[in-house]
Amino acid sequence: MSRPKPIEYADAAPQVRAVFDDIKLSRKVDDVNNFWKYLANDPTLLKRTWESVKDAMAEGALSPLVKELLYVAVSVTNGCEYCIASHTASARKAGMTDTMFGELMAVVGMANETNRLASGYRVAIDQAFG
Amino acid sequence: MSRPKPIEYADAAPQVRAVFDDIKLSRKVDDVNNFWKYLANDPTLLKRTWESVKDAMAEGALSPLVKELLYVAVSVTNGCEYCIASHTASARKAGMTDTMFGELMAVVGMANETNRLASGYRVAIDQAFG
Amino acid sequence: MSRPKPIEYADAAPQVRAVFDDIKLSRKVDDVNNFWKYLANDPTLLKRTWESVKDAMAEGALSPLVKELLYVAVSVTNGCEYCIASHTASARKAGMTDTMFGELMAVVGMANETNRLASGYRVAIDQAFG
Amino acid sequence: MSRPKPIEYADAAPQVRAVFDDIKLSRKVDDVNNFWKYLANDPTLLKRTWESVKDAMAEGALSPLVKELLYVAVSVTNGCEYCIASHTASARKAGMTDTMFGELMAVVGMANETNRLASGYRVAIDQAFG
Amino acid sequence: MSRPKPIEYADAAPQVRAVFDDIKLSRKVDDVNNFWKYLANDPTLLKRTWESVKDAMAEGALSPLVKELLYVAVSVTNGCEYCIASHTASARKAGMTDTMFGELMAVVGMANETNRLASGYRVAIDQAFG
Amino acid sequence: MSRPKPIEYADAAPQVRAVFDDIKLSRKVDDVNNFWKYLANDPTLLKRTWESVKDAMAEGALSPLVKELLYVAVSVTNGCEYCIASHTASARKAGMTDTMFGELMAVVGMANETNRLASGYRVAIDQAFG
Repeated sequence: MSRPKPIEYADAAPQVRAVFDDIKLSRKVDDVNNFWKYLANDPTLLKRTWESVKDAMAEGALSPLVKELLYVAVSVTNGCEYCIASHTASARKAGMTDTMFGELMAVVGMANETNRLASGYRVAIDQAFG
Repeated sequence: MSRPKPIEYADAAPQVRAVFDDIKLSRKVDDVNNFWKYLANDPTLLKRTWESVKDAMAEGALSPLVKELLYVAVSVTNGCEYCIASHTASARKAGMTDTMFGELMAVVGMANETNRLASGYRVAIDQAFG
Repeated sequence: MSRPKPIEYADAAPQVRAVFDDIKLSRKVDDVNNFWKYLANDPTLLKRTWESVKDAMAEGALSPLVKELLYVAVSVTNGCEYCIASHTASARKAGMTDTMFGELMAVVGMANETNRLASGYRVAIDQAFG
Repeated sequence: MSRPKPIEYADAAPQVRAVFDDIKLSRKVDDVNNFWKYLANDPTLLKRTWESVKDAMAEGALSPLVKELLYVAVSVTNGCEYCIASHTASARKAGMTDTMFGELMAVVGMANETNRLASGYRVAIDQAFG
Repeated sequence: MSRPKPIEYADAAPQVRAVFDDIKLSRKVDDVNNFWKYLANDPTLLKRTWESVKDAMAEGALSPLVKELLYVAVSVTNGCEYCIASHTASARKAGMTDTMFGELMAVVGMANETNRLASGYRVAIDQAFG
Repeated sequence: MSRPKPIEYADAAPQVRAVFDDIKLSRKVDDVNNFWKYLANDPTLLKRTWESVKDAMAEGALSPLVKELLYVAVSVTNGCEYCIASHTASARKAGMTDTMFGELMAVVGMANETNRLASGYRVAIDQAFG
């Protein structure tokens, strides 16, 4: 390859298909997102990443919606265009409303501002925060 | 000043004290965090930042707890030591348990990993994400 | 200029042409990449950057291939689209195989994840690391 | 916990000890680094992270030394203090000499500079890079 | 909305129009930039952001030109494509020449390089810097 | 070395001393900052970095003060502790007042906030910005 190319289900090796099948089943979708089709170039990485994501994003003490909001917050902070697009979509699917999206952006913007104010003013850590 | 220094209540100008008083009242604390004492070097910035933070972090479609988790997610992604320390503390106050903290870290770590995989593989944005 | 524009060899001043010639000679290419054509808007910056890059990327204790892999690792971590595209191409030219690219991505992804886990858990530096 | 605390072997649950034992065996060390002791607060995250790291850092098309150099490159780009300290130590153990470290820093510095020049000049992607 | 959409003046609610009017008046422009049209999805965020930006970017001890240069420096460091495009334009409007742009890029590139050298070499803070 | 160590003038090789002498002369200081003492571990990198910094920071279309403010803006955005400390000191030496510092922080904070809002709302680039 010169530029990595997505691998479609029809062209995929059996161990890649097994992961694709599990993604489709878990997410109740007809096809997997491009992200997984590119990772399929490295079947080991594909399998490990999917299993870790499935594990990390599952219902737990935090709901899948909250976890998707956190994913968007990280992706926006990193400026990762693909990740913002795909996880905003996932967050909507998990129940994010327009108002929630607006509040999410407000918090993420504010946190990025105050992070720099804290660094620039070289704020000493309060004793209470150990 | 050569290095910015925190301004204590006793030494603060009236318009700084007014902000400190509002922070103490809103958060039901006896003293404000160091962050605010450093910003007090610039009373206009102090006032604007506090009002924006109060606005952004208020109960809304997202709970104060979820908003604090988002704040930690951004601060960890930026590697801002003071911000991680202070907002981990705020998140605990707002109800974050040890299990929630563990899940938060797992999502933030995973999001930072997959952000780079998406960029490195130069994943094309799925049509569905428009 | 309103938006910076690339400067082609035919339109370039002599001191820019001299740098372009050296790039073409060193890299055995017929034309320089866009990156250099944009930097040509500032001939001093062009010259200094090319000389520093040539110096830093030369065969040394680390091979040119390893250095290109490092360049990709930094560019992916920063999410710099142009840099990912151009240095993935350079790395391939220097001998990077598909398998190497897969392992590179795996390490870069993992490092970005564990960097955040270390920050978020506020891990104390081991005495052995001084 | 208010601040996350490291968990020592003596105080660890059986599934944490199993991971610690595997780290010690794989790395031929008497004790694990602080990083793992903090992750032990979340045994699932600990196990998954260790297995992923072991997998990603193993001998492959790229040597363990090259992989450690990549890890340092990412950590320096992110400014993660703990990660720079621990992976500089790992890289030395894997064979990094002083000269290699110097070249590594030179490439990482240069890549971070040219990443910004490419972004700031808004360089169009060369057709050849697809 | 699935993807956030810009809100045009004709379709805007009265409190959004009031902000748009103030932007047009302050900046002496016929229409506001896309940035403001997207923020209009959240009228509170729109108002607060505009007031903060107007406040922060006003003539003060630093001139509006210097402030725009600083904005570009931050945007380039973050790799924010929209922000680089819009604030390069604002900086030109405020008086940035081609030579100034070249020097700006040179400083931003150099600062990003030396930031990593300082982190990678783990430089101890000089006593004089407190 | 296990951890990089600063190299003092008394222990430095002639080509390192030559650079140190030029720094002391140019900056009218009795001793160089720690940054240069660490880079002295790699005399080639030391020389190239000093010459590039001297070149980039010289009086030009932008004043040395403006260039130092830009350096601080980048360093704060990257969260580089050493760089914030050393370049805040340089900026003061070049004439930065307390009020200028406050305005600098306000702009840097605001730019980091609006960068994320632009990314998160996926703002389309205005036609005028090309």
